[in-house]
Amino acid sequence: MLTRIDHIAIAVQNIGDALKFFEDALGVQLDHTALEEGGRTQVAFMPVGQSEVELVEPQDSESGLAKFIAKRGEGIHHICFEVDDIEAALARLKDKGAQLIDETPRTNTKGMRYAFIHPKSAHGVLIELYQKPK
Amino acid sequence: MLTRIDHIAIAVQNIGDALKFFEDALGVQLDHTALEEGGRTQVAFMPVGQSEVELVEPQDSESGLAKFIAKRGEGIHHICFEVDDIEAALARLKDKGAQLIDETPRTNTKGMRYAFIHPKSAHGVLIELYQKPK
Repeated sequence: MLTRIDHIAIAVQNIGDALKFFEDALGVQLDHTALEEGGRTQVAFMPVGQSEVELVEPQDSESGLAKFIAKRGEGIHHICFEVDDIEAALARLKDKGAQLIDETPRTNTKGMRYAFIHPKSAHGVLIELYQKPK
Repeated sequence: MLTRIDHIAIAVQNIGDALKFFEDALGVQLDHTALEEGGRTQVAFMPVGQSEVELVEPQDSESGLAKFIAKRGEGIHHICFEVDDIEAALARLKDKGAQLIDETPRTNTKGMRYAFIHPKSAHGVLIELYQKPK
């Protein structure tokens, strides 16, 4: 059902500063950066094996991501798993009583479907599910 | 240099409870559980693609893991990357001014070498490096 870790998102205050560690010191290769979520988040995409590390930087102080950093500091924000069938995965979670942030999948600008599970149900972990491209 | 995400460790208070979510609801398959770190940590190993999710449960209240949960609650504890050459990776990190928890690699009971980078240098993320088996 879960085919791979798609990405791990790390909340940072400034991608340029964070790259000094993740790229220059740790040696993760930067593929590209892009503005996501209607311009509210800058993302640095850094492939590692079959997964990616994503550095995510809020572009305004009102977003959930900005509030996460204000409250908890920089650190891992969420983990995303690729699934074969996102509807089946969400139905199973709901059936088992898990609290979902998205009861039905959202669709991003590239047409990919994804949904978040509430960390209250997931032992403190914000989990994203991502529909494997057909 | 970083070849893959080896594992993501999630700190939980009770593996049995956590498996109700991660295995029964989310659908990650449990491979096996084992006592690690001289009996101080119970670990549930759950493969996902070329990586693993590891649920880690402290066995006493004095360990760093137990204190992490007491302070921050359950959640992602660390992320581990496999590297081709752990000595080269640590030398590069040190050269770039990163703060290391382990200046030289530790060796586990299976003879595998690993080292931790301090989250102060890594934008709030506790990072483990793991030497790829030759």
